[in-house]
Amino acid sequence: MDKLSEKVLEYGIVLKPENIYYLTGFFPTTKAALLLKEEPLLLVSKMDQRFAETSTVEFKAVEKFEVEFNLKCSKIGVEKKFVSIEFYEKHLKGKEVHDLGFIEEMRKHKEKGEIKKMKRAARITEEVMKSVAGELVGKEEREIASLAEFKIKEKAELAFNAIVAAEENSAIPHYTPGDKKINAGEVVIIDMGAQAEHYNADVTRTLCLGNEPEFYPIVLEAQRVAIKECYAGNEMKNADLAAREVLREYGCEEYFLHSTGHGIGLEVHEPPRLYKEATGRFEEGMVITVEPGIYKDYGIRIEDMVLVGKKAKLLTKLEK
Amino acid sequence: MDKLSEKVLEYGIVLKPENIYYLTGFFPTTKAALLLKEEPLLLVSKMDQRFAETSTVEFKAVEKFEVEFNLKCSKIGVEKKFVSIEFYEKHLKGKEVHDLGFIEEMRKHKEKGEIKKMKRAARITEEVMKSVAGELVGKEEREIASLAEFKIKEKAELAFNAIVAAEENSAIPHYTPGDKKINAGEVVIIDMGAQAEHYNADVTRTLCLGNEPEFYPIVLEAQRVAIKECYAGNEMKNADLAAREVLREYGCEEYFLHSTGHGIGLEVHEPPRLYKEATGRFEEGMVITVEPGIYKDYGIRIEDMVLVGKKAKLLTKLEK
Repeated sequence: MDKLSEKVLEYGIVLKPENIYYLTGFFPTTKAALLLKEEPLLLVSKMDQRFAETSTVEFKAVEKFEVEFNLKCSKIGVEKKFVSIEFYEKHLKGKEVHDLGFIEEMRKHKEKGEIKKMKRAARITEEVMKSVAGELVGKEEREIASLAEFKIKEKAELAFNAIVAAEENSAIPHYTPGDKKINAGEVVIIDMGAQAEHYNADVTRTLCLGNEPEFYPIVLEAQRVAIKECYAGNEMKNADLAAREVLREYGCEEYFLHSTGHGIGLEVHEPPRLYKEATGRFEEGMVITVEPGIYKDYGIRIEDMVLVGKKAKLLTKLEK
Repeated sequence: MDKLSEKVLEYGIVLKPENIYYLTGFFPTTKAALLLKEEPLLLVSKMDQRFAETSTVEFKAVEKFEVEFNLKCSKIGVEKKFVSIEFYEKHLKGKEVHDLGFIEEMRKHKEKGEIKKMKRAARITEEVMKSVAGELVGKEEREIASLAEFKIKEKAELAFNAIVAAEENSAIPHYTPGDKKINAGEVVIIDMGAQAEHYNADVTRTLCLGNEPEFYPIVLEAQRVAIKECYAGNEMKNADLAAREVLREYGCEEYFLHSTGHGIGLEVHEPPRLYKEATGRFEEGMVITVEPGIYKDYGIRIEDMVLVGKKAKLLTKLEK
C-alpha cells in the first residue's frame, strides 16, 4: 500500500476479487471493496462476514456500499481495466482518477508460497489427466470431461470447465465437450485445470489414439523452442515469435489461432500475455503457460506451465 | 436495434457476452464485440470463427479489435455497467456516451422459447437434487457437491458450483463445500443449478435429517407470502417486504443476510433484484428467484424460480 503514497494518492478503491484476496487474504464471494488509505479498510457484505475474519486488514460489514464510495478526496486510484463507466459516473466524477495497476504488476511475480499452491494444482491436474487418458475409447467427450472434473473436485476446486475435443472437434480451440463418441485412432485434446487455495493450473495434452498425426511433432517443437525463450531478461514477444517461426517453416502459421501463452495465478488468464506484439521482458517469478497449437481438419495443442528464472523451468511434469 | 435510433445514436458497441448472445444467437468464448449500426456487425476472434456461423447478423473475424473500436461518431452507446474506464479512455473519450441499458431491459422479459429452456434447466436440477438427497448421511459435503455436479453434467451444463452446507456450515450463505461429514439429525442446505442452452436454473432446498428445526416453517411461510407478491403490476419491493415482515414477527429479521431474490436467465443473477429499496413493478414474463433465509447457529434457505404473470407461477416443482 506504500505504492499509493508514491503516487501521492489519498485513496484507492479495490474492487476486483482476486486483487482484494491478494492484498488481504480474504476472497469475497459477493460484493466487497478494499479502501486503500493510511489504514486500509475492507468492506464486506453481511453474507461474507464470517469469511472476512481471515483478512489481514480491518474489516467492516456494510449494507450500503454506495455510501462508502463517495470519498472526499481529489485524487483516487481504481482498477481502470475492471471498474465500470457506471461506477466512474456515480462515484469518481470530478476526481483525478489513477490506475491501481501496481496490484496486477505485483501479482505477476509469484512468491514461494504461491508457487507451491500452483504446483499442487498442477500435480492434481496431471494425475487426473493420466487417469482419464486410459478411458477415452468408447466414451463421449462430455463423459470424459465430467469424469475429469469430478476427479479434480475430489482433491481441489476446478480452475475452469474441462475441454475434451475429439477428432474434428479438436480443431476448435474453445470447444465445449459434446456427445461425440471417442473412437480408436482419433486425436483428442484435453485441456483442464485444478485450483488449489485459489491458485490455478492449466494443462493441455493432445492424445493420439492412432498413428502420430503430421502436426504433432511440429507443435511439440514449437512449444520446445518457445519454452526455451522464457528466461528472465528476454523480451516476452520472443517466446511467441519462436513458436511462430517453427510453424511457419512447416507452412502452418496460419492455423495457429491464438497467442502462445498467458500468465496464470489467481486467475487462469492474467497478465502477461505472450503474443507477437507483447512489450516488456520476462522477469523472475512469472508463471506463464506455453501452448502453441495448430487447428486445421483436426487440432493439436500442447500446454505446460513455466516458471521464469535464469532459465525457464517447467512446473508441469506430465509426459507428452 | 431500433432502440438505437430512438436515442439518435449512430453507433453502439456491445461487449458483454450474454448481451451479444441475446442479440445474435452467438455466445462468444473469448473476446468479441457487436457493433450496432444500420447493419449490425459482429466482430469475433479467429478462435470463435466456427461458432460465429450460428449468428443471425453478419460477422467478421478480426485480429485487432482495438482498431475496430475507434469509430468516427459523436454519440455512442455502450453497456455502462460492464464497460471499463480503460475502454472509455481508449475508445470513447470526447464522445457523448449513452447507456445500452435497453438490452438488459429486454432480457428481463422472457419469451416462450427462453422459458422452455429454463424449465428444462429447472427439471434437471430438481431430478439431481432428489437423487442426491437420499445419499447424504455419511458422505462429505464436497462428495455430495461433486456428485450433484457430475449428474447435472450428464444432461446439461452447470449454472454454478453446487453449495452443500451441513449443520453449522449452513449458517454461511455462500459456503464452499468442505470435508465435513454429514450426520443423521443435521440440517443440510443444497443450492444448485443446471444450465440448458445458456439458460440457468437456481434452486435451494434445506434438508432436515432429524426433527424439523424451529426456523424451517418460518422461512417456508416467508417464501410463501413473498411468492404471492410476484404478480404483474405489483411493486417489486413488496416481495422483499412481505418476506421480511414474516421474519420480523418471529424476531428473525436480523438473521436474514441477503435480499429476497434476483432475476435469472442467461445469467444466474441478473436484474431485477428483489430488495427492500427496489423500485419498479413486476412485469409479465419476468423470471425471478424467491429465496428468503435465516442464518444463525444453523441456516435455512428455500429457493424457487417464479414466472411473473397475472399471478405468480412456480417454474420449480420440487417438494419442500
